[in-house]
Amino acid sequence: MHRFFVPAAARTGTEVALPAEESAHLVRVLRLRVRDAIRVFDGRGREWDAEVGEIDGARVQVRLGRAVEPAPEPRVATVLAVSLLKGDKMDEVVRDAVMLGVAAIHPIAAERSDAAVRQAERRGRLDRWQRIAIASAKQCGRAVVPEIAAVATLAEGLAAAAGLALFLTEPGAAAPGVVALADVPRAEAATIFVGPEGGWTGEELRQAADAGAVATTIGGLTLRADAVAIVALTALRALWDDL
Amino acid sequence: MHRFFVPAAARTGTEVALPAEESAHLVRVLRLRVRDAIRVFDGRGREWDAEVGEIDGARVQVRLGRAVEPAPEPRVATVLAVSLLKGDKMDEVVRDAVMLGVAAIHPIAAERSDAAVRQAERRGRLDRWQRIAIASAKQCGRAVVPEIAAVATLAEGLAAAAGLALFLTEPGAAAPGVVALADVPRAEAATIFVGPEGGWTGEELRQAADAGAVATTIGGLTLRADAVAIVALTALRALWDDL
Repeated sequence: MHRFFVPAAARTGTEVALPAEESAHLVRVLRLRVRDAIRVFDGRGREWDAEVGEIDGARVQVRLGRAVEPAPEPRVATVLAVSLLKGDKMDEVVRDAVMLGVAAIHPIAAERSDAAVRQAERRGRLDRWQRIAIASAKQCGRAVVPEIAAVATLAEGLAAAAGLALFLTEPGAAAPGVVALADVPRAEAATIFVGPEGGWTGEELRQAADAGAVATTIGGLTLRADAVAIVALTALRALWDDL
Repeated sequence: MHRFFVPAAARTGTEVALPAEESAHLVRVLRLRVRDAIRVFDGRGREWDAEVGEIDGARVQVRLGRAVEPAPEPRVATVLAVSLLKGDKMDEVVRDAVMLGVAAIHPIAAERSDAAVRQAERRGRLDRWQRIAIASAKQCGRAVVPEIAAVATLAEGLAAAAGLALFLTEPGAAAPGVVALADVPRAEAATIFVGPEGGWTGEELRQAADAGAVATTIGGLTLRADAVAIVALTALRALWDDL
């Protein structure tokens, strides 16, 4: 069943216009017709059976039918605060993090995030990441589209952390005070900070400690920067949720 | 400390020649010199302090010093039996699986593995994957280089499975008899089968069941085919080992 993201969807029995991109996809790519059965979700966790209503050029109305049970969200809401990565690695992290059930993504301009990337990201990548998040939610069946926050400094990111702040450090940094992820008590909600290609600086580690973040490692594993986010989110779900 | 892979390394106090690729890397890329301190590992779990001995053109001898404690391997040896994936996705899976501590990789030509890929892989990719596995072991600090088996059919792969055979199915296939990964009792060793882009066929699912494999899913997640292997290995380590 094709799923469409309609933030304005509100309740059974009403009609609602599809956003422009979703309309174009329905008409031109999927070539659906009036009365075809579809699914509609609002990006905030609600989903409905629906059918295609009036099609006027590229404008499409849909009729919301009965509400359906949305795909279950993780029990522990986890925010990914991820340092900017080069090239399309960030795109992959956004896509996979959404599939792994992330509650929100907070991009962080870390001291060792590539300078050119930092500039570019601040200007134009946010829309792109939002579109990737929407596409990923459609594909994986989630009725929630996680918010992608504006690129922030680490200080801003630490201040915005929801729930327990976990600060992932490299295995080499396994200093006293660094707790294995498996030994962190389960929290109601968490924000996990993942560093850039070159790791966090000493100053950033101090900043995180001062903000009360728990320094943690994933079993002494040395991973690619773009794999770390996925591995960390998976490990947290496996440890705290049910996979 | 630079680490070199020397399968012939045997014991403290002996001299051993570096393989050609490792020699070239030491001389031309790293520009190391006689008496420089290095590390040597044999790919089977042993590692030594060592120093550069004679350098004769592109041939390098090294002297093995005291044995050092190798990076810890996972407590549960896990083999990844992964269906062939398109393009360089398989390269990434090999690299990441090694970093996640996989014991061996068994590439499987599944019915829905791309036909062109199946042909190509059978011929020339094995050497490439072995090189990636070596590079990954060097980078992540493992003293073990997991074996990459020759591409096999699913039947061959099932016959070669070490320990508990886990057969990952898509969330849609959550039929009776499919067990959540979190509910699979911890095994001494396991082989986890990951399907191709289009999923397993019904016939393949039957084949696996007949061979006694446990059908399992990862928490109803719908993931990219190349992310599934990483997520599955991470989840198993988190559930069965200590991350």
